[in-house]
Amino acid sequence: MTSLSEVYRAYIACLNRRDWEHLGDYVAEDVQHNGRNFGLSGYRDMLVNDFEQIPDLEFRIGLLVCEPPFVAARLDFDCSPKSAFLGLAVNGRRISFPENVFYEFRNDKIMSVWSVIDKVTVEAQLAT
Amino acid sequence: MTSLSEVYRAYIACLNRRDWEHLGDYVAEDVQHNGRNFGLSGYRDMLVNDFEQIPDLEFRIGLLVCEPPFVAARLDFDCSPKSAFLGLAVNGRRISFPENVFYEFRNDKIMSVWSVIDKVTVEAQLAT
Repeated sequence: MTSLSEVYRAYIACLNRRDWEHLGDYVAEDVQHNGRNFGLSGYRDMLVNDFEQIPDLEFRIGLLVCEPPFVAARLDFDCSPKSAFLGLAVNGRRISFPENVFYEFRNDKIMSVWSVIDKVTVEAQLAT
Repeated sequence: MTSLSEVYRAYIACLNRRDWEHLGDYVAEDVQHNGRNFGLSGYRDMLVNDFEQIPDLEFRIGLLVCEPPFVAARLDFDCSPKSAFLGLAVNGRRISFPENVFYEFRNDKIMSVWSVIDKVTVEAQLAT
């Protein structure tokens, strides 16, 4: 038996490998993201686009809190979006920011995601 | 024995009562907030200021994920900041937004907080 934390860490490794063939091992067909019905294909499109816009994107887990069927993670990003990010003209600058995100799992697959990215921190870095 | 989830719910009730006399029952003297050494008095000052700037502020727990010594919560706010909020000219408009926040406890008191408020959602509401 694999713990839900281990499932989550395997999901993050899948993202970092850009292993889209296996995304469906971790994400449900009817996945929701911030209340929207993305579905697995829409979720994959979002991730493919993220890696296209941010070529050096890497998901790193800063904090992981697990109480099945929920996982909460604080993800630490350190990357260089090519153009705009969150509506901000980053244009290749290297920025560091966290994302605090909740997941609800069903049968070891993500069925809902509630994500908040720290835009205020990005704005502060661009202002320097 | 009280579970950490119950301690956290009591902390939120304390905030909503504006019961600053008892804040130290839930928050450590050397508390940190987003990496800064606030201390209990600085933490109290932040909260008092929040309630002054947002008279109808109420903390509501949307999601609660607990794995001691950590608690992760998604808080749902529906309130009317008097003037600026997150650098945005809200000026009394009613806005709804989430905060995804992690807490680390020690001896049933909060010693670290890592919070992200959803500024993008607030911006979208002000644009309508």
